[in-house]
Amino acid sequence: MTEVLELTRDLIRRRSVTPDDAGCQALIAERLARAGFQCESLRYGEVDNLWATHGEGAPTLVFLGHTDVVPTGPVDTWSSDPFEPSIRDGRLYGRGAADMKGSVAAMVVALEAFVATHPRHRGRVGLLLTSDEEGPDNLDGVRRVAEHFRAQGERIDWCVVGEPSSRERLGDLIRVGRRGSLSGTLTVRGIQGHVAYPEKARNPIHAFAPALAELAAERWDEGNQDFPPTSFQVSNLNAGTGANNVIPGALTALINFRYSTASRADDLRARTEAILRKHGLDWQIQWSLSGEPFLTPPGGAVRDAVIAVCRELCGISPEESTGGGTSDGRFIAPLGAEVVELGPVNATIHKVDECVAVADLEKLPSLYQAVCEKLLA
Amino acid sequence: MTEVLELTRDLIRRRSVTPDDAGCQALIAERLARAGFQCESLRYGEVDNLWATHGEGAPTLVFLGHTDVVPTGPVDTWSSDPFEPSIRDGRLYGRGAADMKGSVAAMVVALEAFVATHPRHRGRVGLLLTSDEEGPDNLDGVRRVAEHFRAQGERIDWCVVGEPSSRERLGDLIRVGRRGSLSGTLTVRGIQGHVAYPEKARNPIHAFAPALAELAAERWDEGNQDFPPTSFQVSNLNAGTGANNVIPGALTALINFRYSTASRADDLRARTEAILRKHGLDWQIQWSLSGEPFLTPPGGAVRDAVIAVCRELCGISPEESTGGGTSDGRFIAPLGAEVVELGPVNATIHKVDECVAVADLEKLPSLYQAVCEKLLA
Repeated sequence: MTEVLELTRDLIRRRSVTPDDAGCQALIAERLARAGFQCESLRYGEVDNLWATHGEGAPTLVFLGHTDVVPTGPVDTWSSDPFEPSIRDGRLYGRGAADMKGSVAAMVVALEAFVATHPRHRGRVGLLLTSDEEGPDNLDGVRRVAEHFRAQGERIDWCVVGEPSSRERLGDLIRVGRRGSLSGTLTVRGIQGHVAYPEKARNPIHAFAPALAELAAERWDEGNQDFPPTSFQVSNLNAGTGANNVIPGALTALINFRYSTASRADDLRARTEAILRKHGLDWQIQWSLSGEPFLTPPGGAVRDAVIAVCRELCGISPEESTGGGTSDGRFIAPLGAEVVELGPVNATIHKVDECVAVADLEKLPSLYQAVCEKLLA
Repeated sequence: MTEVLELTRDLIRRRSVTPDDAGCQALIAERLARAGFQCESLRYGEVDNLWATHGEGAPTLVFLGHTDVVPTGPVDTWSSDPFEPSIRDGRLYGRGAADMKGSVAAMVVALEAFVATHPRHRGRVGLLLTSDEEGPDNLDGVRRVAEHFRAQGERIDWCVVGEPSSRERLGDLIRVGRRGSLSGTLTVRGIQGHVAYPEKARNPIHAFAPALAELAAERWDEGNQDFPPTSFQVSNLNAGTGANNVIPGALTALINFRYSTASRADDLRARTEAILRKHGLDWQIQWSLSGEPFLTPPGGAVRDAVIAVCRELCGISPEESTGGGTSDGRFIAPLGAEVVELGPVNATIHKVDECVAVADLEKLPSLYQAVCEKLLA
């Protein structure tokens, strides 16, 4: 059994359902310390973060990953125990196999091999892990670590995130940026009353309808060469008492922008509020910015290195995408780092019978190691 | 203690929370049988209905009422036990005092007095009671009795409903019609997906927004001399999984029309569906017609009789209204009857500490008896 397969299996056995690290980081810190890394545990609230570095000075290349996994759902719908790694038909099954204990194990194995081969490499190479990537708020994970880095004047030049980026074959897609995510909880107030006496009530559903139609039809921007146009979605809309003879007193809508670098969060907020104001509603909105967009432009060293590695070792020119959800890369990019994401095929993540192809898993350390070689050897 | 006060108290003591009659109708049937009425009990499902008549041939004047009451809510919020009648400061307190055990008792006392005074009155006088007026569906109450009447060829010319119609003083408002009520449960289907991949989903909230705005802005009719314009309300609107990163797969809206005789239910349905069709939605709607509108036009004998009685015995020219919710009169009107509603002040109905002024209660039998005198003496 290869080293990366064995380590992935050891990590899957640790039931690290977010935000519980369940001992994953201690296992990794012990290995990396043995390999000569300086390891620092940063525990915030219930969240474990590990910061391990090797070497000194600039430039700094960081591998970024998470040890926590999403819940399994009903265990009896799985073909095998989600926390007992199982190999069948060339695939390793278990929660976190693809998202992203396989990538984390591959990073560890790659880093050990790189520093063994190049003990006096230039600059620094590091690994940053959190146990709070899959949770709802991510307050105490990489967000907090990045604040700490900023306060310490910690400089990061390049970051490779191990999120499962590949679509059908390992290396067929890398992420070179992510859209931002801006959410709002909107309340529109009316006056509750009996439907038989509409003149004594004010229906917030009716009042909101024209504003909703305008918001849904709005073209927020045209995107740009790297991003699709900003997308606006009302994810939840609720009003009413359940009874059909009562005009409701309030309406609540959850809205979300996935926005490109063609827009700024402040402008999206202002334009939303301008539309609401225009329609004479009694409203309030609570905004929450969960991530600014980031983009690593073409020609950057880490982007070029990752593309070259996919071509040389996987025989594929990867699609360079800014699609999909957010990732912890959004907290590292604002530190001034170029961020690229490369990981295994994501078809089964967050699902029953999550798995990774053993062949892909066994190739992944060589990809990460090759990135180190290109940038720091 | 007057006879009507004593009977009202006896009825309040019977805990006839809808659709339970709790023995009210048996008590009344026994009294009316003793007074020479033919009494028929029509029990459908869990619902008791009583049909009592005196006399023969045409015309037929029917008093219509219900023995069931709405629930009390938390009993400790009442100043006295809602099922133990209590007189304080000239008011009789108890659940059903105003809606409508007081009216029922007054009708019984009035009918007894009328047939005692006019044993050979012209035509027929009757009392129709149900224990299913306050429930959600009213399937086995007057709706079913009316079907039975239609099947039997039963003819009703005039109907006086005892619903508490008065606003501030006994006799200051009578109902001469009611709006119809048409409800619909609308489902708009989309395609569920992650907000980060809007191109793979179809948001039913966004799809419905322009149709909703158009429905809310539509002027359905201008009303007429007897009715205000038809009112359309979306009472409930729900979509979303609760999560802010999921585009919902469907939206549900409950809609309700309160409509005048200026519109027909079929037309309102057709116009609603035309608007939905225009916006290219994937939708379905389930309609429920809970009552057609009815109107007793000016100049009708029972309307004139009730107005005259209010003027002569209460010293008031009543407002002749078609406002408010629906009543069981909607089932009797389609039999060809002229329907008018006259009852006590409705300020406390369906509320804690429901009550009726003892003076109003004691006057009510004379009003109902005077209607009998004017029409059948």
